[in-house]
Amino acid sequence: MATRREALRMIGLASGTTLIGALVGKRELVAADKKGNDASELSWSYTKLDPIACAERAYPGYYKGGCCYGVFEGIIGELRKQVGFPYTMMPTELFTYGEGGVAGTASLCGTLNGASAAVFLIAGGVEKEKKEKAFEIIRELYNWYEQEALPNYRPMKPKYEIKTSISKSPLCHASISRWCKATGFKSFSNERSERCGWLTASTAKYAVELLNKHSEMAFEAAHHLSSEVKTCRSCHDKGGIVENTRTMMDCGGCHFTGKTKHIKI
Amino acid sequence: MATRREALRMIGLASGTTLIGALVGKRELVAADKKGNDASELSWSYTKLDPIACAERAYPGYYKGGCCYGVFEGIIGELRKQVGFPYTMMPTELFTYGEGGVAGTASLCGTLNGASAAVFLIAGGVEKEKKEKAFEIIRELYNWYEQEALPNYRPMKPKYEIKTSISKSPLCHASISRWCKATGFKSFSNERSERCGWLTASTAKYAVELLNKHSEMAFEAAHHLSSEVKTCRSCHDKGGIVENTRTMMDCGGCHFTGKTKHIKI
Repeated sequence: MATRREALRMIGLASGTTLIGALVGKRELVAADKKGNDASELSWSYTKLDPIACAERAYPGYYKGGCCYGVFEGIIGELRKQVGFPYTMMPTELFTYGEGGVAGTASLCGTLNGASAAVFLIAGGVEKEKKEKAFEIIRELYNWYEQEALPNYRPMKPKYEIKTSISKSPLCHASISRWCKATGFKSFSNERSERCGWLTASTAKYAVELLNKHSEMAFEAAHHLSSEVKTCRSCHDKGGIVENTRTMMDCGGCHFTGKTKHIKI
Repeated sequence: MATRREALRMIGLASGTTLIGALVGKRELVAADKKGNDASELSWSYTKLDPIACAERAYPGYYKGGCCYGVFEGIIGELRKQVGFPYTMMPTELFTYGEGGVAGTASLCGTLNGASAAVFLIAGGVEKEKKEKAFEIIRELYNWYEQEALPNYRPMKPKYEIKTSISKSPLCHASISRWCKATGFKSFSNERSERCGWLTASTAKYAVELLNKHSEMAFEAAHHLSSEVKTCRSCHDKGGIVENTRTMMDCGGCHFTGKTKHIKI
């Protein structure tokens, strides 16, 4: 009878680029097989992706599994196609959970949540240096989302034409409210839904542009916290006289709008 | 030369409960192997978990990879131990991305983000019925988080003793600010960090209690949106006269606190 190693090689020879074949080719897994957590040994290698292809995969993804799934699948689905294993093993549908700001609660915009997960899977790691680099990319995504007029990508076959708005916040409900105010559409209109589809495509596209830059060691943040946010943080964040919170969100998106003043909560 | 199927069987015979052996035993994967997305065919079966064991796995997880990873690993790590494949293939470290409200931006609390992902992986699916059931569980987690005095689980070997606060919000920075106000500690103190470690354990524990109920077909929400939130939603959410947002968050956690009034933003 063949040894296990021989049998593994047989499958590898017989299976081309299929899942099992790819598994067999992974030294990491052979090592990890002896431990409890096989997945922590996997290598999520990146190859430069076409941002338009990712956007066009993300857009129908929105209508299948929501904003968070749409972005995650837009990026990871392209890597499944281009790289194969281990992306073939990633259940992208898990990210359906982020729909409508997580299960419809309208907290964190699902496009940012899904994009952040994809960026971290590719660029991040538990080691401090990798983690911080991925976090820098994610923060650039947040600042872009808060500061740019979005959506800024028009899918090739849209259902409606969609106008833009500036969200000033990474939160689903705030982002939607600002778009409704800018365009006059209701929050449960088909147009608003389509807007979130375009936003899903736009965020996947921008995240991949950043990942492509990162893969060339050329990533630099193009969007930064405003001077107003820096002023807030100088008292309220780490080392400040109050030091009673932490944030890298745009404070002005929620606080001190309209007639409200700088008060204690 | 052995056929691929024979070779697969050989490995299965030789490898016991290891990854490759488990893979071989999965009819889903043999089928999925012929398609593009193998992972969408996986079955994430659940066995009732010990909530304390999950909490005790989540707490050190917080100090390794942050709040979001801590909760996700607290639950999925126990399933990796109890069930094995396919949980052995889930790279739980991915959820490090949710640390500090996603990459330190302090938007969505990572404990809720990680718990929501774990709940959806186990209880959810793309099909409407499964999705809605998982979303109900996630919303219960949100309401619990916003309304209860937390953290309500004390790890067996804590670094400090920690007092509780009510967050009134699922957001990292709001939750932290309320805890700082309630206890007098600064937001970057060791005690605040420990508080988030306890919160990681508390959220993993409660999520698993809900999943255990769900596995017995006995899940019922114990926390509900307040009458104040329902009043807000009656005008601003689906079907309301304004219909300019969507949310299932506690509106009062951010809006109309202190001296602020009901104004247009």
